[in-house]
Amino acid sequence: MVRKAGLEAISLYQMKFSTFMLACKPNMIYNVNGQKGNTFSQKGCGGMASSSKTDTEVIIGGKVFTLSGYESEEYLQKVASYINNKINEYSKLDGFKRQPADTQGVLLQLNIADDYFKAKKQISALEEELAAKDKDLYDLKHELISAQIKLESVEEQVKTLQKAQNEGEKEIVRLETELKKK
Amino acid sequence: MVRKAGLEAISLYQMKFSTFMLACKPNMIYNVNGQKGNTFSQKGCGGMASSSKTDTEVIIGGKVFTLSGYESEEYLQKVASYINNKINEYSKLDGFKRQPADTQGVLLQLNIADDYFKAKKQISALEEELAAKDKDLYDLKHELISAQIKLESVEEQVKTLQKAQNEGEKEIVRLETELKKK
Repeated sequence: MVRKAGLEAISLYQMKFSTFMLACKPNMIYNVNGQKGNTFSQKGCGGMASSSKTDTEVIIGGKVFTLSGYESEEYLQKVASYINNKINEYSKLDGFKRQPADTQGVLLQLNIADDYFKAKKQISALEEELAAKDKDLYDLKHELISAQIKLESVEEQVKTLQKAQNEGEKEIVRLETELKKK
Repeated sequence: MVRKAGLEAISLYQMKFSTFMLACKPNMIYNVNGQKGNTFSQKGCGGMASSSKTDTEVIIGGKVFTLSGYESEEYLQKVASYINNKINEYSKLDGFKRQPADTQGVLLQLNIADDYFKAKKQISALEEELAAKDKDLYDLKHELISAQIKLESVEEQVKTLQKAQNEGEKEIVRLETELKKK
C-alpha cells in the first residue's frame, strides 16, 4: 500500500503537476507537542527512486513526511524549516493555540500565501524598476552616441581648420617674401 | 468567547506579528466534500472593527473564515482564491485525495511555500539584474561625461582655430594690399 502510494506520487511528479507529493504515508515520530510517538523504521519507499529523483524526509509540525521529487534535500529542508518557524512563532499565541488543528492549518496556509503574494508584489516592483532602468540605459546610450557623433564631426572641423590655418600661414610667408623682394 | 478571540486577533494584528488572524471562530457552511453543513448566522464579530480594520469573510476548502486585519477585502479574496485553486487542482489527484486531511493541509503548505521560495529566487535574480544594470548605468554615465568633456575641449579648439584663421585672413588681405601699393 505504501509502495503504491509512492509510485503514484512519482507519476504525479513526472507530470510536473505538483512540486511536493508524498512518496509514502507520513510516519509519525513526534506528536504536535513534541513528545515521541510511533516511529516506523522504513526510510523513503525503497528501490523506487530513479537516478535523478530523491526521497527526502522532512519533519513538519512534529510529523515526518517523505517527499519525493527532483528538488535537492537542502531545498526541501529549507522549505520545511520555514514552515516550522511559522508554526513555532504562531504556537506562542493564544489566539492561534485555541483554534482546532484544521483551522491552524488554514491559518498557516493563509500566512504562507501572504508571504508569497508579498513576494509577488516585490517582483512586480522590481520588474518596474528594471523597465525604468532599461529606459534610462536606452536614453543614455542614445545620448552617448549623439555626443560621439558630434565629437567626430567637431574633430573633422578641427582637421579642416588646421589645414586651412597651415595654408594661410604658407600664404602669409609667400606674401611677406614677395614684399621683401620688391 | 467569540468576542474575546476577536479582540485578541486585533491585538496580534496591531503587533504586526501575523497578517492573518481569525476575527472569530470559523463558521462551517460547507464541509470538505462541498455538502452543506451547519451555518451560523453571525457575520464577523460585530461592533469590534475600528475605522481602518475590516473583517472579511473568505471561503477556503469549503469553510468560511472571518479574517481580521488591515488588508483590503480584494486582497484577502485573492489569497483565498489562490489557495482554493490549489485545493481544487490537487483534489483531482488520487495521491492527494487518499491522504488524511492534516497531511493534505501540510502538502498544501509545502506547495504554497514552494511558490514563495520560487518567488524569492526570482527576487534574487531580479535584484542581481538590477545591480548589473546599475553598474551599466554608472559606466555609461561616466563614458557620457568623458565624451562631453572631450567635446567641450574640442569645441574650444575650434574657436581658437577660427579666431586664428580670421586673423590670418586679415593678415593676408593686409599683405596683399601692401603689395598692390608697391
